[in-house]
Amino acid sequence: MLIIDCHGHYTTAPAKLQQFRDQQIARLGDPGLPLPKLASISDDQIRESIELNQLKLQRARGADLTIFSPRASAMAHHIGDEATSQAWTRACNDLIKRVVDLYPANFVGVCQLPQSPGIPIANSVGELERCVEELGFIGCNLNPDPSGGHWTAPPLIDKHWYPFYEKMVELDVPAMIHVSSSCNPNFHATGAHYINADTTAFMQFIEGDLFRDFQTLRFIIPHGGGAVPYHWGRYRGLADMLKRPALSGHVMKNVFFDTCVYHQPGIDLLVKVIDVDNILFGSEMVGAVRGIDPETGHYFDDTKRYIDALAIPAADKRRIFELNARRVFPRLDRVLKARGL
Amino acid sequence: MLIIDCHGHYTTAPAKLQQFRDQQIARLGDPGLPLPKLASISDDQIRESIELNQLKLQRARGADLTIFSPRASAMAHHIGDEATSQAWTRACNDLIKRVVDLYPANFVGVCQLPQSPGIPIANSVGELERCVEELGFIGCNLNPDPSGGHWTAPPLIDKHWYPFYEKMVELDVPAMIHVSSSCNPNFHATGAHYINADTTAFMQFIEGDLFRDFQTLRFIIPHGGGAVPYHWGRYRGLADMLKRPALSGHVMKNVFFDTCVYHQPGIDLLVKVIDVDNILFGSEMVGAVRGIDPETGHYFDDTKRYIDALAIPAADKRRIFELNARRVFPRLDRVLKARGL
Repeated sequence: MLIIDCHGHYTTAPAKLQQFRDQQIARLGDPGLPLPKLASISDDQIRESIELNQLKLQRARGADLTIFSPRASAMAHHIGDEATSQAWTRACNDLIKRVVDLYPANFVGVCQLPQSPGIPIANSVGELERCVEELGFIGCNLNPDPSGGHWTAPPLIDKHWYPFYEKMVELDVPAMIHVSSSCNPNFHATGAHYINADTTAFMQFIEGDLFRDFQTLRFIIPHGGGAVPYHWGRYRGLADMLKRPALSGHVMKNVFFDTCVYHQPGIDLLVKVIDVDNILFGSEMVGAVRGIDPETGHYFDDTKRYIDALAIPAADKRRIFELNARRVFPRLDRVLKARGL
Repeated sequence: MLIIDCHGHYTTAPAKLQQFRDQQIARLGDPGLPLPKLASISDDQIRESIELNQLKLQRARGADLTIFSPRASAMAHHIGDEATSQAWTRACNDLIKRVVDLYPANFVGVCQLPQSPGIPIANSVGELERCVEELGFIGCNLNPDPSGGHWTAPPLIDKHWYPFYEKMVELDVPAMIHVSSSCNPNFHATGAHYINADTTAFMQFIEGDLFRDFQTLRFIIPHGGGAVPYHWGRYRGLADMLKRPALSGHVMKNVFFDTCVYHQPGIDLLVKVIDVDNILFGSEMVGAVRGIDPETGHYFDDTKRYIDALAIPAADKRRIFELNARRVFPRLDRVLKARGL
């Protein structure tokens, strides 16, 4: 059995990446400044940033492969304009590609998108194509709120998003629905905005008929599906009240939850109420919560332990750890098969 | 043991109340129209609206008393201006008072507030005083987002809210944190906005030091605390990362969750991770989810069944059903004691 972590971010990139971003932001305040260029980052600098962090933890925790994307909180699509987002996104994605090339057995790429508030999502199609077809990435992170906590974009079921979904279907890649940092002081990024976005997206899918229009479109809702599994009765009941079809056919053929829930009772609930075929192992490490749980003595985000502890058949654990990810990310499955895995 | 439902709304008020609201809204579009007046509602009309709904279900499900407030989704503080909100709020609260007077053994009042976007919360102090001191209400519903899904107010830990908290402390009444309908198409009211607000408020409390400034201030976060219990590890870990005190002392002496979670596994989780002293029985009936769960054959919102089914000591169930509500709502305790209960 392979252990595939579907949710890892490059939160530990060399400082030059942030320097580039700082220069971008400085230029927003002073357009006379030159267009910034990302300073050269050596392979050794990348190796150090990975080997002391994600790779060390991957090995220590017994995972094999991480589906790896740029730092989600740093996407910050609300900063600057579309050109800002395009340049930043390209730099972040190119760095993921370098990690994957250095550690092809341990990481596979998922891309950030050059979204920007008020800009058609069709403008993100080119970067998706580049990342999938040229860089070998297997999916993308789609931000339902490029405004960063003001929620000014149309809901995900709106036709606004359809040009992008058409390309996702054509390339056969899924998207993780993932907001970025919040510039609304009401919403702490990882404590409120992330979880709210997960919950919001799921409810939008109930309200719409997106998966009738795109039967093979696939989304991962991270952080264990936000509030959804805990309120599974509410969502079943709301679908019924709104005269929507049962969730199993209406939403759950296309929507998957990861296991970024940082305590055993939460994972127990997730696996109890959500079909095991809809659950993908994920940890979000090194990410939102980096400490050690004093109640267990283990890292909060060492989510493999919680799944290991579940009293479910080994075949079901293999679905969560490996097979569901291979089904949701067909391009990953092809890569692994080509390696004899 | 008394069974006290801490979360009921008058969602079934006689049609004249909505007609008044419709006239208010019509006048917003045509200021030449006369100021609307609520048409006379007879006691029999109120009796019918209650006896066929909340009272019938209260009896059928075996609850004794409902802490009763105006329909939350209809508060809609974002409609019109402060005068609109003041008139609407007064009408809604006065109707709650009439229900309580007709059925004093079955209902006790909690008030809506005349909030309005951009208006100081101090302007809601008068209505809170009127409802508590003149009408005998025991608490209020506080909307953290009077904009209805645009989240333009300061966070609940901001000094903006302090004049209201001072009055709550002085009157010794708690607030349920409860948003209203959403005018942001991203957020379905009961499926996203409500749950997001619950999660958001809790994270704000972690970020701030509100309960150092107001040690006896008490909030109920409804809908089982939003996403919080499911992500309890995340919140414990975030408090640690943000160098905040442990949640038990920092937040949980002042914050309580109701049991509006509409399936057994959700309630099981709630009671497993949250101290039983922080849980108040609530159903939100007749409210967000009105149907029958095909998996159980019972109403989704018949939350008493889920608590009855818990394998916890009878003394803990009494805390959830009665004693915690009497502690969080001291004015309720006084009323009950005066009745020899």
